[in-house]
Amino acid sequence: MEFTVEQIAAMLGGTIEGDGKGRITMLAKIQDARPGQIAFLSNPKYENFIYTTGATAVIVSKQFVPRKPVTTTLIRVDDPYISFTVLLEEYHKLISFQRSGIEEPCFIGSGSRAGKGIYRGAFSYIGNNVTLGNNVKVYPHVFVGDNVSIGDNVILHPNVKLYAGTRIGNNCVIHSGTVIGSDGFGFAPQADGSYKTIPQLGNVIIEDDVVIGANTVIDCATLFGDSTIIRKGVKLDNLIQIAHNVEIGKNTVIAAQAGISGSTKVGENNMIAGQVGIAGHLVIANNTHIGAQSGISKSIKEEGQRILGYPAFDIKEYFRAYTVFKKLPGISHRLKQLEDRVYGNNHEQEAPTVSESAE
Amino acid sequence: MEFTVEQIAAMLGGTIEGDGKGRITMLAKIQDARPGQIAFLSNPKYENFIYTTGATAVIVSKQFVPRKPVTTTLIRVDDPYISFTVLLEEYHKLISFQRSGIEEPCFIGSGSRAGKGIYRGAFSYIGNNVTLGNNVKVYPHVFVGDNVSIGDNVILHPNVKLYAGTRIGNNCVIHSGTVIGSDGFGFAPQADGSYKTIPQLGNVIIEDDVVIGANTVIDCATLFGDSTIIRKGVKLDNLIQIAHNVEIGKNTVIAAQAGISGSTKVGENNMIAGQVGIAGHLVIANNTHIGAQSGISKSIKEEGQRILGYPAFDIKEYFRAYTVFKKLPGISHRLKQLEDRVYGNNHEQEAPTVSESAE
Amino acid sequence: MEFTVEQIAAMLGGTIEGDGKGRITMLAKIQDARPGQIAFLSNPKYENFIYTTGATAVIVSKQFVPRKPVTTTLIRVDDPYISFTVLLEEYHKLISFQRSGIEEPCFIGSGSRAGKGIYRGAFSYIGNNVTLGNNVKVYPHVFVGDNVSIGDNVILHPNVKLYAGTRIGNNCVIHSGTVIGSDGFGFAPQADGSYKTIPQLGNVIIEDDVVIGANTVIDCATLFGDSTIIRKGVKLDNLIQIAHNVEIGKNTVIAAQAGISGSTKVGENNMIAGQVGIAGHLVIANNTHIGAQSGISKSIKEEGQRILGYPAFDIKEYFRAYTVFKKLPGISHRLKQLEDRVYGNNHEQEAPTVSESAE
Repeated sequence: MEFTVEQIAAMLGGTIEGDGKGRITMLAKIQDARPGQIAFLSNPKYENFIYTTGATAVIVSKQFVPRKPVTTTLIRVDDPYISFTVLLEEYHKLISFQRSGIEEPCFIGSGSRAGKGIYRGAFSYIGNNVTLGNNVKVYPHVFVGDNVSIGDNVILHPNVKLYAGTRIGNNCVIHSGTVIGSDGFGFAPQADGSYKTIPQLGNVIIEDDVVIGANTVIDCATLFGDSTIIRKGVKLDNLIQIAHNVEIGKNTVIAAQAGISGSTKVGENNMIAGQVGIAGHLVIANNTHIGAQSGISKSIKEEGQRILGYPAFDIKEYFRAYTVFKKLPGISHRLKQLEDRVYGNNHEQEAPTVSESAE
Repeated sequence: MEFTVEQIAAMLGGTIEGDGKGRITMLAKIQDARPGQIAFLSNPKYENFIYTTGATAVIVSKQFVPRKPVTTTLIRVDDPYISFTVLLEEYHKLISFQRSGIEEPCFIGSGSRAGKGIYRGAFSYIGNNVTLGNNVKVYPHVFVGDNVSIGDNVILHPNVKLYAGTRIGNNCVIHSGTVIGSDGFGFAPQADGSYKTIPQLGNVIIEDDVVIGANTVIDCATLFGDSTIIRKGVKLDNLIQIAHNVEIGKNTVIAAQAGISGSTKVGENNMIAGQVGIAGHLVIANNTHIGAQSGISKSIKEEGQRILGYPAFDIKEYFRAYTVFKKLPGISHRLKQLEDRVYGNNHEQEAPTVSESAE
Repeated sequence: MEFTVEQIAAMLGGTIEGDGKGRITMLAKIQDARPGQIAFLSNPKYENFIYTTGATAVIVSKQFVPRKPVTTTLIRVDDPYISFTVLLEEYHKLISFQRSGIEEPCFIGSGSRAGKGIYRGAFSYIGNNVTLGNNVKVYPHVFVGDNVSIGDNVILHPNVKLYAGTRIGNNCVIHSGTVIGSDGFGFAPQADGSYKTIPQLGNVIIEDDVVIGANTVIDCATLFGDSTIIRKGVKLDNLIQIAHNVEIGKNTVIAAQAGISGSTKVGENNMIAGQVGIAGHLVIANNTHIGAQSGISKSIKEEGQRILGYPAFDIKEYFRAYTVFKKLPGISHRLKQLEDRVYGNNHEQEAPTVSESAE
């Protein structure tokens, strides 16, 4: 990016004290800033830096009164922190979408077409009959299989792999190493103990506004014409496993290393913490919060639950039970003492085996 | 693919009603099918679609009697669903192995040779002294290190990475992002608290008929001449960790995100569910079924067990114990009440600490 | 590598019996060795092989007295096993760093510069303003983003991905498929249930002597100027998740599939076993050992603890409690019997619900 101080002040609705022509190419912390950079001062603890900073400009409050001479240009705004955040978001958007054009060598098959503002990095591979919208950024080492379609404003970070037939909506970001559309894990046992591969012929559909982290895997659906579906607004972290025919409901958030088994339907606005495992063919109600490392072996029918454990149940009850779990050796000892007292020391009822106990 | 209706009817042993010359390039569901596609009708619920379908041909039962005029061509068979499945498998095989030839640019080192029907995708990299059998499909961005040998009919999906010395048998499929032969995790602690890397000099051997999912990692063996071994017919899902010197027995199936630690030998025909962890240097008997998220800290000697938990034990006993675990707060309360009754309210034997209890 | 027997004997301080001019290109086990290879004999069980081996040379003890004629050349040393290990380490170093030069096509942006002994594999991608030290080995399909800096003697295995701004020290090894600097998982909930992406503007710093396994992910810090930090000497295994703003202390070792949530600070010399999960914003004391699959939900303040469980506590106490957990059905049964005896068979105090119990 490159802006003048005047352009930035206009963007923030701020007023300038000093040279409005200075050129800004970067943001920085006030203690680190150098010429060409812009910083902000919000917390009074950092005030001293404004008298020595190398920054070309500093965003300050309208109320800020310097106690010493200031050589940097000031941009005065209502809330310097919020204004800096606005700049950061603008900067991030610029950086994210700044790449365009085609780096050679890269590969594109026949019948594929792309909108405006496309970037195709060196060593990226696009198969046949692929459709890319506007502002699609295909970083180096990305693989886009045949018949894939991708909407507008999509970023495929280096090394994303999209198997043939994948469909991606608008405004999606997919991070490095993530694989979408690999074969579902389906094998039919044979009489001799071996397994025959069940052909995996469906695809994956990713709706709008989905963000997917790095090295995550989403398998395609098994049957021809079926899809594994990630609904609008879903956010997936790194190293997540989404099996064949899964559906993840709108605005659900899943943290790193969680795994969802085949054909499970996860509702909307769920929060699924790290390393959670969900078994196959379940339905998880909307607004379910699942604590880290939990195992889900049955469908969750009631909305809005907070659960934990393996298998998971109400999180408060889990912690109550776990508190007692930690004391089990003492409890076992106390029970034995009580038996000794009640039955006398040589009683025989002490230890029914587990299989005898009537559970 | 492209077949005539006649060719497909011959393949299925079916009889044609209508135009046998129609060209089929794709399979579809009857409700979605368009010209050039073939569908099937099995479930009577879908019968109405056959009168309006755009399909060039529809596979129907020999017994099917239309209630209205049909414009599409019919192929009559004994069981339309099974016939369609045959077509799907044929289609899948064709699709999987259809790529051949060499896309440029791609890289091949000196002394490497390949059989017939090879595909080497753009940006694939094959090192020195590599041997590839017939019908090996090396997709874009695959890396094959020096001295690797690969059998016949092997598919390496985009971005598979094979470190130097890896050996792969026949009829294997490896999905995107999987890494085979990376260094085992071995470090020798030094007096100053740092660690020295133990050179990892073995390799990985993958036998015939093995399928490996996406973003899985299999480390090489530590010692020179030793191998991490994946036996014939093993199926591994996505994001699995197989450490150095592990051996996975014939026809064992491992679900996503499971991890097997160094030097453990897993028997034949095991079923290991998702997110299971197995400690190092263990032996797991044949026909063991390990439930999801279980932790295995000791060898399993008896064959045919079903286990769960951390550490895992008999799955039925685990669930019985877990049922009581959920009620622990109540049990703790009941024990206290009983103590009050038996000892009187001011007794002192209530709470021996854990360390005092004679376990 | 290629050495004469004389050169190897000199390296090991050994004496030669036989032809010192023989050329060695490879190490092997004595039972497998062929011409051009060197083996060793330490365990008397393998003595017979020395009379038939194809090896060009065999390392033996000074005390070794052949019982039959030997045709291979002998190198006599104090301890053949240790000498062979020295050769293995030397061999490993040679192999690791042997690649140099530039394979075409590869990509390098403007303003980037590299030291001596560099290797840039085919299809590797180096962005703008990148700094590489001496002996940096950039394997095929590696992506190095803009403004990355890398020290000396660093190996980036095939397909490592370094996002813009990553900084890597000296003597680091990063295995295939590992992603460093991807966006932290940060989203701000909106009134309509959707989430807005929080820009992730920090970077990742990897200090000296760090080894990272395959398909691991380390996210960048959230705020501009902040870093996720992996300290000197840390060893990370495969498929690990390190979230934004995490810091991993010096010489800490983390096994496969573990995950550390955002902003957590892990101390020095920790040992974190496989599949462990650590929640966000915690501080873990130095010298903590965390058992496999444990979940850590609170900071660990006391150094030197050994913990296990979910949530984790003292490992010995965990196993004691777990031993009783397995017997819970029996304990529940015994408690009921005791109640029957004490209260009589028709008492009503048997089953207070969990919510009634005063925990």
